[in-house]
Amino acid sequence: ALTTLMEDLHAADIADLLEQINSYDRTRLIRLFGREFDGEILSELDESIREEVIATLNPTVLADAVRELETDDVVDLVEDLEEPQQEAILEALEDSDRVAVEQSLSYPENSAGRLMQREVVMAPEHWNVGQAIDYMRESEDLPEQFYHMVLVDPRLRPIGNVTLGRIMGTKREVPLTDLLEETFQVIPADQDEEDVAYAFNQYHLISAPVVDGDGRLAGVITIDDAMAVLDEEHEEDILRLAGVGDESSLADRVIETTKRRFPWLAVNLVTAVLASLVIAQFEATIAQFVALAVLMPIVASMGGNAGTQSLTVAVRAMATRDLTGSNVWRVIRREVLVGLVNGVIFAVVMGVVGVIWFGSPSLGGVLAAAMVINLVVAGLAGTVIPVLLEKMGVDPALASGAFVTTVTDVVGFFAFLGLAAWVLL
Amino acid sequence: ALTTLMEDLHAADIADLLEQINSYDRTRLIRLFGREFDGEILSELDESIREEVIATLNPTVLADAVRELETDDVVDLVEDLEEPQQEAILEALEDSDRVAVEQSLSYPENSAGRLMQREVVMAPEHWNVGQAIDYMRESEDLPEQFYHMVLVDPRLRPIGNVTLGRIMGTKREVPLTDLLEETFQVIPADQDEEDVAYAFNQYHLISAPVVDGDGRLAGVITIDDAMAVLDEEHEEDILRLAGVGDESSLADRVIETTKRRFPWLAVNLVTAVLASLVIAQFEATIAQFVALAVLMPIVASMGGNAGTQSLTVAVRAMATRDLTGSNVWRVIRREVLVGLVNGVIFAVVMGVVGVIWFGSPSLGGVLAAAMVINLVVAGLAGTVIPVLLEKMGVDPALASGAFVTTVTDVVGFFAFLGLAAWVLL
Ligand SMILES: [Mg+2]
Ligand SMILES: [Mg+2]
Ligand SMILES: [Mg+2]
Ligand SMILES: [Mg+2]
Ligand SMILES: [Mg+2]
Ligand SMILES: [Mg+2]
Ligand SMILES: [Mg+2]
Ligand SMILES: [Mg+2]
Ligand SMILES: [Mg+2]
Ligand SMILES: [Mg+2]
Ligand SMILES: [Mg+2]
Ligand SMILES: [Mg+2]
Ligand SMILES: [Mg+2]
Repeated sequence: ALTTLMEDLHAADIADLLEQINSYDRTRLIRLFGREFDGEILSELDESIREEVIATLNPTVLADAVRELETDDVVDLVEDLEEPQQEAILEALEDSDRVAVEQSLSYPENSAGRLMQREVVMAPEHWNVGQAIDYMRESEDLPEQFYHMVLVDPRLRPIGNVTLGRIMGTKREVPLTDLLEETFQVIPADQDEEDVAYAFNQYHLISAPVVDGDGRLAGVITIDDAMAVLDEEHEEDILRLAGVGDESSLADRVIETTKRRFPWLAVNLVTAVLASLVIAQFEATIAQFVALAVLMPIVASMGGNAGTQSLTVAVRAMATRDLTGSNVWRVIRREVLVGLVNGVIFAVVMGVVGVIWFGSPSLGGVLAAAMVINLVVAGLAGTVIPVLLEKMGVDPALASGAFVTTVTDVVGFFAFLGLAAWVLL
Repeated sequence: ALTTLMEDLHAADIADLLEQINSYDRTRLIRLFGREFDGEILSELDESIREEVIATLNPTVLADAVRELETDDVVDLVEDLEEPQQEAILEALEDSDRVAVEQSLSYPENSAGRLMQREVVMAPEHWNVGQAIDYMRESEDLPEQFYHMVLVDPRLRPIGNVTLGRIMGTKREVPLTDLLEETFQVIPADQDEEDVAYAFNQYHLISAPVVDGDGRLAGVITIDDAMAVLDEEHEEDILRLAGVGDESSLADRVIETTKRRFPWLAVNLVTAVLASLVIAQFEATIAQFVALAVLMPIVASMGGNAGTQSLTVAVRAMATRDLTGSNVWRVIRREVLVGLVNGVIFAVVMGVVGVIWFGSPSLGGVLAAAMVINLVVAGLAGTVIPVLLEKMGVDPALASGAFVTTVTDVVGFFAFLGLAAWVLL
């Protein structure tokens, strides 16, 4: 009864279900499937539990499941598996598919070569619509999914795409070169998949040919796979910004999750201790004016928040390539000015609070001045730090947060306590 | 010379260029285009400067530019414009296009009805491949881009998709219903575009029919537009998590940017003051042991970071629909346990630091205990708060951060200072 219910579910939904239940239920559910385990489920499954599920499957069931898959999905399935599981799956494939998968795996991880499917429909550039139609109608093994014919020159270099729709709607004698799509991008097989996803989104590509080092057609990437990459890249950014290992998964157990979160908390501990060392320099001042201890977290917290705002805007703009050499100075200037304006507004507010709460105009003034300084520094650091990290080849999403909050903590405490020591003593 | 150089650029790249230069250069560059301004540039342009650019264009140039666009792109272009500009563009359209655009605009903002294109290729469900081919070959006005024939029943309700590739590769006498795509999703016109993007990504759809209230075919959404929505939804989440208005743009000026950032800094100020009020309760204790002022930010900062980790994982998992009723308790339990384990590890570290730095085992113990408490609370609050906000219909990306850091600040300071007052006095 349960399995008939499951039959109506899409493989992606079954995969999600398997991810959401615990390991014991998972094994039982997979047993229920018996001999009819859909290969698509494996390729939809989160990497964190793929190995577990594959290990649960009977080898013949696994072999059947894998043979149904398209080669690009097999690549995605095996690339992160351990050697023995990888071998088992490759051996289950037909010879031609295995060669295709192994060729894809010869390209670097996260490259276009790993994303592409080998099944391509191509045509010589001199063909006309009639020839294209006759060729496709006579062909025995067109790919499951294709949207374009790729025109190639005699050396198999792609020169343009023609959509099937245009071919359907055009007279037989018209040359295919008259129907070329206006936007056409050729993707080198070693290009990073992040750049591939960017190109699909920027140019509204539906499919794009992939070429090897000699510029010859090696495969084709379709937009559905590019969309999945875009989604993964986003996940990477949002999790890295929060200091969470980007390979983390909701299906991870306590011990894995702890291990992934720990390093960033450790980094944060170091920066927090740095901030404490700054405070320690002013112990004498604090002992005399305990109000300083009460108010100092406000300055640091406001700076941290403003810095995170600037930083996130910068990281996102770099991901979408909207922050470039041509506007980086304008953006830095803007962020600093925004810090200044917000700083002045909050300085006034906090100055008044300081006076009313502690009855001390000079304490209010110190609080106000420290607020302005820290928000300006936050705007500056929040933009400059990710830009510099990117220049150094470090992912700004990964490391900026720790640096920026260190800066705003240290500057915030130092400005507030330093000014206080100077003015109040 | 510059304009010939620009001719080779894709409209999306020209739009990016216009976004990156300042307003003065922008006006001059648009003047250079003269009469040949590509409508695609307008539809690629960031909303923040669209109105400015449209205002710069000569009305006849604008009319020409807009007439080139497909109706779904016109909808996207006009939906956020002020009344007079919207009118001007609608009037420039041919009658049939204007009706199509106006009908799309009658659907709610951010709905499938606004995303769809009206140009659809459909066929009665009883047709065979030969009839489909003959129909398309005779048709005079096939859409620019289409990938499927939508099969409809006699009441125009879509019953399945057939790809052009399958039609090309199949004998004339085979009924189209034999070629139906396995995965088929019908999208109600009033569905939120976020759900549309999810469905495309989850089920690898390339195009999907949109139906009106009676279930009749009203249009079709293609994956390129769904991909753009997915990207926008990402941007919304990442910017909201950072407390940045999600309509913000890199092209915004200082004053707009300040206005967008201000509200979240103001919220943060309130929470920071709340934390200060907690500290103020322990002024007497701090006056006696200034070391408390030095160490207390560490506890709050670690809690804030751990809370942000949990919170980001939860928000992302809700966006991908991986966090559901069936695993929410397991995730909450996991996050609390992770907080506990990390808390114990850092408690040991900080206990030792406390002893070495200040030579006080009891201070070290207080620091350690407060650390454990705050990291456990961080894991709990970081998961429960976004889940509750979602249940209440509030976007968890938008509001969770402020709540979670308030909790970790207040609990951190209270636990540390409270324990200190109790143990050390
Ligand atoms: Mg999934
Ligand atoms: Mg991969
Ligand atoms: Mg990557
Ligand atoms: Mg694929
Ligand atoms: Mg990235
Ligand atoms: Mg862009
Ligand atoms: Mg753009
Ligand atoms: Mg379009
Ligand atoms: Mg829109
Ligand atoms: Mg939305
Ligand atoms: Mg479109
Ligand atoms: Mg959202
Ligand atoms: Mg999912």
